[in-house]
Amino acid sequence: MRRALETMEVFAHFATASGLEADEVDAVATSAIRDATNAPSFLERAREQTGLHVRVLSKAEEARYGYLAAVNSTSLRDGCVLDLGGGSMQLVAVEDRRAGDLGSWPLGAVRMTERFLPDGGKASRKQLDKLRAHVAAELEDAPWLQRTGRRLVGVGGTVRNLATAAQRAAGLPDVGVQGQVVTPDALGELVDRFASLPAADRSKKVPGIKPSRADLILAGAVVVQAVLDVGGFSAGIEATEAGLREGVFLERHLGHDGREPLWDDVRRASVRNLAAQYPVEPHEHPEHVARLALTLFDDLAAAGLHPGDPLERELLWAAAELHDIGMAVDYDDHHKHSRYLILNAGLPGFSPREVALVAQAARYHRKGMPSPSDLAPLFEKGDGQRLDRLAVLLRLAEGLERSRDQTVREAHAQAVDGEVRLRLVTDGSATVPRWAAMREVELFGRAFDRRLAVA
Amino acid sequence: MRRALETMEVFAHFATASGLEADEVDAVATSAIRDATNAPSFLERAREQTGLHVRVLSKAEEARYGYLAAVNSTSLRDGCVLDLGGGSMQLVAVEDRRAGDLGSWPLGAVRMTERFLPDGGKASRKQLDKLRAHVAAELEDAPWLQRTGRRLVGVGGTVRNLATAAQRAAGLPDVGVQGQVVTPDALGELVDRFASLPAADRSKKVPGIKPSRADLILAGAVVVQAVLDVGGFSAGIEATEAGLREGVFLERHLGHDGREPLWDDVRRASVRNLAAQYPVEPHEHPEHVARLALTLFDDLAAAGLHPGDPLERELLWAAAELHDIGMAVDYDDHHKHSRYLILNAGLPGFSPREVALVAQAARYHRKGMPSPSDLAPLFEKGDGQRLDRLAVLLRLAEGLERSRDQTVREAHAQAVDGEVRLRLVTDGSATVPRWAAMREVELFGRAFDRRLAVA
Repeated sequence: MRRALETMEVFAHFATASGLEADEVDAVATSAIRDATNAPSFLERAREQTGLHVRVLSKAEEARYGYLAAVNSTSLRDGCVLDLGGGSMQLVAVEDRRAGDLGSWPLGAVRMTERFLPDGGKASRKQLDKLRAHVAAELEDAPWLQRTGRRLVGVGGTVRNLATAAQRAAGLPDVGVQGQVVTPDALGELVDRFASLPAADRSKKVPGIKPSRADLILAGAVVVQAVLDVGGFSAGIEATEAGLREGVFLERHLGHDGREPLWDDVRRASVRNLAAQYPVEPHEHPEHVARLALTLFDDLAAAGLHPGDPLERELLWAAAELHDIGMAVDYDDHHKHSRYLILNAGLPGFSPREVALVAQAARYHRKGMPSPSDLAPLFEKGDGQRLDRLAVLLRLAEGLERSRDQTVREAHAQAVDGEVRLRLVTDGSATVPRWAAMREVELFGRAFDRRLAVA
Repeated sequence: MRRALETMEVFAHFATASGLEADEVDAVATSAIRDATNAPSFLERAREQTGLHVRVLSKAEEARYGYLAAVNSTSLRDGCVLDLGGGSMQLVAVEDRRAGDLGSWPLGAVRMTERFLPDGGKASRKQLDKLRAHVAAELEDAPWLQRTGRRLVGVGGTVRNLATAAQRAAGLPDVGVQGQVVTPDALGELVDRFASLPAADRSKKVPGIKPSRADLILAGAVVVQAVLDVGGFSAGIEATEAGLREGVFLERHLGHDGREPLWDDVRRASVRNLAAQYPVEPHEHPEHVARLALTLFDDLAAAGLHPGDPLERELLWAAAELHDIGMAVDYDDHHKHSRYLILNAGLPGFSPREVALVAQAARYHRKGMPSPSDLAPLFEKGDGQRLDRLAVLLRLAEGLERSRDQTVREAHAQAVDGEVRLRLVTDGSATVPRWAAMREVELFGRAFDRRLAVA
């Protein structure tokens, strides 16, 4: 209680220093306080010492905020949200992005550790089986769990830390865990490894595990395992970096006029949000590059020169919108800075692989032969070729829009006589756009196996 | 002429798209146009086709802009500025930051290549000696060159590219060439290497040389060599990323009311400029962290626990001002983002080694044991220990200012009984600041070989 009050006091000072009044701060409390017998006296003292009025969330409210965080930070449409905290675990069924059945159980990582793995030593199979059986028994009052869609999104520090460890175990680059899937197999291997170590060694010997989670991670992992099992989520659990806090924020930000607080399209919102953080001048430029690149993409697909995958088209759009954001760091090497910002500021709704493709396309929007570089472990079959297509279309569009004033209004690609001819509709001289386009002959040949010409 | 007009047209379109009127654009022309017999017809056509009025700089004006770029992007006080372009080379004596004697010679890299190394093959010693002798003869009308201070700052693409190549040859990390010194020995080795290769191979076989410079770099390097020799600049030449363009800008930006367009203190201006690009909330926070850290620095120096080097003090100030700028990218890992922005957005006036120290101090302002990581090749003797001191003082100050509202108004360090005691002057509870400070006991011990205590 003392430590909680001290921590709140620091936050209250910080909020005041940031120009916020206490009543503008939405302080919320979850399971631990909801269930504490001395909660009223704590809340009173908190209010006296910090001026903060703490709102104690009901189980349903806590579940709802986790749900809001998940559906606004992933492309989840039908499935389930798991929110695992220290005290409780919430599950929410999601149907067409709306919350359906939900429940909250006292199955948090701290509680389960204290009850089933209190000694901090290695864990026996028997101990783990008991914990699993306990979770399964608790979940018997949620028969709806087997009827949700098969996609499970996980909220909270335990899931995030498991995702980091799974990423490290798979030799993937560290690009954050947004959208990282932990398969049942990967989770099983982590559980076995944790169980074979005393708690104190789990962060030292398992790459990615945070020291502050070392004592709780095993119980948390087993709870998740049991949910995968009971619910039949055979694809595993998908991490998101958003959590309760983002849920509270998004309700305020999006939930006006009785509207359900949901982004219409999470991926579009992510891209636009990131673009808005690093404005480019003139602001018409990225939009126009996107328009030119997408037209060429469509023309070449219609000509049978690539599959015309709608996902790839969306990644091209995202890369075009974001290709210049690195200018916020420096004009020199701004393609590299765009890559850094895309990888590090994040694109909720996209998987790590998709973010890697967008980042590499932006990286190569000016020059150089595209390569996945250290993001290669995230690439799937065909992604090298995909990156070539993304990069060269982006470069063509950027070259055509070199004057940054939409002089080239439209560009079309036609496959004729074994070559691809660009046809430009311009408002002024096409000399430089034509010259810029012709610089891409080599990469275009690599990407589409055709000679590029400008009509 | 045709290519120049097309290029200008693109820039004119870009300027218009960015909302600039043609008369707000300051288009300047240098040696090549100044000396061209058909300059008037070019300038007239440029004006007709693009609306841009090109100002043809005199030799003295061209020299002055190079000088302004150099003294506003380095800490040069007394010495000389060399500005090497394609057509001409300018030299300006600098005394107490003011321009003194100056001259311009038709010794640009393009001209010298065309005259002395026209065939693009390997170069013989005889060819190079002839070029050197030509430069030396031309410089005979600048006897003042031997009387300037011994520091030479170089402006222009040739010098920048030589600095990159010298950096690569020395195995230094790529952090840009601002402040990078090319010693006469390093330059000699580059010249020998260039001369042993046909021009076409120079960018392929010498790391760092740009393809577009491959044909000009040898003549440019020899001209610089000759200047070092004639002027007796035995320390070599120091690159800056600023050039004529920045000189033109700085005159507009700083040169009001007949004032000489000079930053009062280039290094302070750099730090404040970078901090202003990525504002931190509340804005008092970085200043206060700087104040606390510098007081501790001074107290510990007074107690004889470190040398109290004024340069180190300045780096501590810079790191404190910039430690949180990475929040502009993301709160998570913002210490790493601060490092990235410091390394990539640049700090003119600081050497690469100094930038590396500031960046690493910011990197370790929250946690982890400080290490130079991949910047190690830039570190000099004692810099590991210096980084420990910078990081721990920054962390102590940050911990004390955790509430970000200056609750800890002052902090003093006293060496008593073999330990160092912090004495805090606070406006509120000191519980959290004290706790935060005590987290630094280990690093403090490593940095100052004393146990840390809070009084």
